[in-house]
Amino acid sequence: MIGADMSNHKPCIGVFDSGVGGLTVLKALLEVIPGADYLYFGDTARLPYGSKSAETVTKYAVGACEYLHSHGTDLLVIACNTATALALPKIERVVGVGVVGVIEPGAQSASGASQNRKVVVIGTDATISSHAYLRALKSRGVEAREKACPLLVPLVEEGWIAHPVTEQVARIYLDEAFAGEFESADVLVLGCTHYPLLKPILRRVAPAQVKIVDSAESTARAVAQQIRLDPKLSGAESVNEERGRGSSHIRFFATDSVQKFRSLGERFLGRKIEDVQHVDLKE
Amino acid sequence: MIGADMSNHKPCIGVFDSGVGGLTVLKALLEVIPGADYLYFGDTARLPYGSKSAETVTKYAVGACEYLHSHGTDLLVIACNTATALALPKIERVVGVGVVGVIEPGAQSASGASQNRKVVVIGTDATISSHAYLRALKSRGVEAREKACPLLVPLVEEGWIAHPVTEQVARIYLDEAFAGEFESADVLVLGCTHYPLLKPILRRVAPAQVKIVDSAESTARAVAQQIRLDPKLSGAESVNEERGRGSSHIRFFATDSVQKFRSLGERFLGRKIEDVQHVDLKE
Repeated sequence: MIGADMSNHKPCIGVFDSGVGGLTVLKALLEVIPGADYLYFGDTARLPYGSKSAETVTKYAVGACEYLHSHGTDLLVIACNTATALALPKIERVVGVGVVGVIEPGAQSASGASQNRKVVVIGTDATISSHAYLRALKSRGVEAREKACPLLVPLVEEGWIAHPVTEQVARIYLDEAFAGEFESADVLVLGCTHYPLLKPILRRVAPAQVKIVDSAESTARAVAQQIRLDPKLSGAESVNEERGRGSSHIRFFATDSVQKFRSLGERFLGRKIEDVQHVDLKE
Repeated sequence: MIGADMSNHKPCIGVFDSGVGGLTVLKALLEVIPGADYLYFGDTARLPYGSKSAETVTKYAVGACEYLHSHGTDLLVIACNTATALALPKIERVVGVGVVGVIEPGAQSASGASQNRKVVVIGTDATISSHAYLRALKSRGVEAREKACPLLVPLVEEGWIAHPVTEQVARIYLDEAFAGEFESADVLVLGCTHYPLLKPILRRVAPAQVKIVDSAESTARAVAQQIRLDPKLSGAESVNEERGRGSSHIRFFATDSVQKFRSLGERFLGRKIEDVQHVDLKE
């Protein structure tokens, strides 16, 4: 009977981010696992995490993940590079379900894509200072140079996605990142969920031989694999099948204005955002 | 006896900002009222306020001001345009001491400086959306055009204070602000405490006839006047005198990393920052 119940259980995937950037991960998840249900939590009142200390980011991220867990999440995706870099072990200890961050899948894809075993990673101040990507790539025999690009998030949020100023800023950052020893790097890892929106600019600005690795897509594939391997969720095989597409129920939670979440979020998710609920998190 | 006690009482001025930008106001206060003691609160864990909703900004600002009040503040300065624009009335109701925001003093200076009665105000998204400057200037018979410049704060925080990209961004914003009907505007109000660091660039980019009004300086003068007029603080006449200079005791509180506050803050205050204490604010 339990087995029969489980086979009808649709997995509920909780996706957490400091803001709307993680919606690029949700978008990739909806492509790869169209039949699951989703809860998305954006801690928009306290964003950005990328400029804050490890202690503060950990405290905020753990609170948000506990909230998602208490709302029925079967599997938790940390769709925020900064929170993954700084708080993943703590989140794993606190919530009682599987947790997938964006850094290991991103590093795995980068390692697969790099022939020269030299990779450039761009991200926020906090992600880069943590050296989480450096470690994840080193353990795969890949040398990494990490470069903080703190202006790219504000430029995306200003909507200057195809703006000459953004191209100029990206060029300054990438010229530094691909200088000297890393001239021969052949992969650029987008270590921040805002950056996929800048792919066309980054493509133009990065050296010609460089492949761009988007953690959002790698993470979605890692989540699909985890679901296939997890006996508690494997009754929901149909989640990977085409016939499940479009049947996802998605609920959104935001700590700042619901209206702002909706209007900015639709740019990242590429579809309408309906069911958003405001949440007050005690610290 | 009470009068005698009061005459020895050094006023304690509480200065509140979402981050380090308000240190430009503290710097101006130290010039104008060198003999007072100061408490400075930077809500660095939850900054920036400028991109957040009125409800969230009000909740955060009220909590921080209550904290300052409970630590012995005689007079409270809201050194944050966004918090002044959105939360000043609420703060006044909640704390039992005088409160000075940055917007009225800034509007007063702008009105005094404008011959054409046409003024441009630049600030964060939240400050501009509140139209607090528009109202404050209208009540003085001055027409205002408000222009949100959300990229200027990140550019200052990246340290690109004299960078060609910052000049280009400032030019884009100001060209729009001084277009059409406002070509004849003769005052530019810096409606954000980060902007005084960009004065040299803004000077080059703004039309030649434009005078720049810095709310930090206007606010410091308004505070000095309030102290002179307040019987509870008027025993401390010496606070305005040169002999008091350098004797201020300044304590800092920050909700994010103390180390980051110190290193970024010194750029704004223009002097060493010593006594910083970390504070956890419950929401």
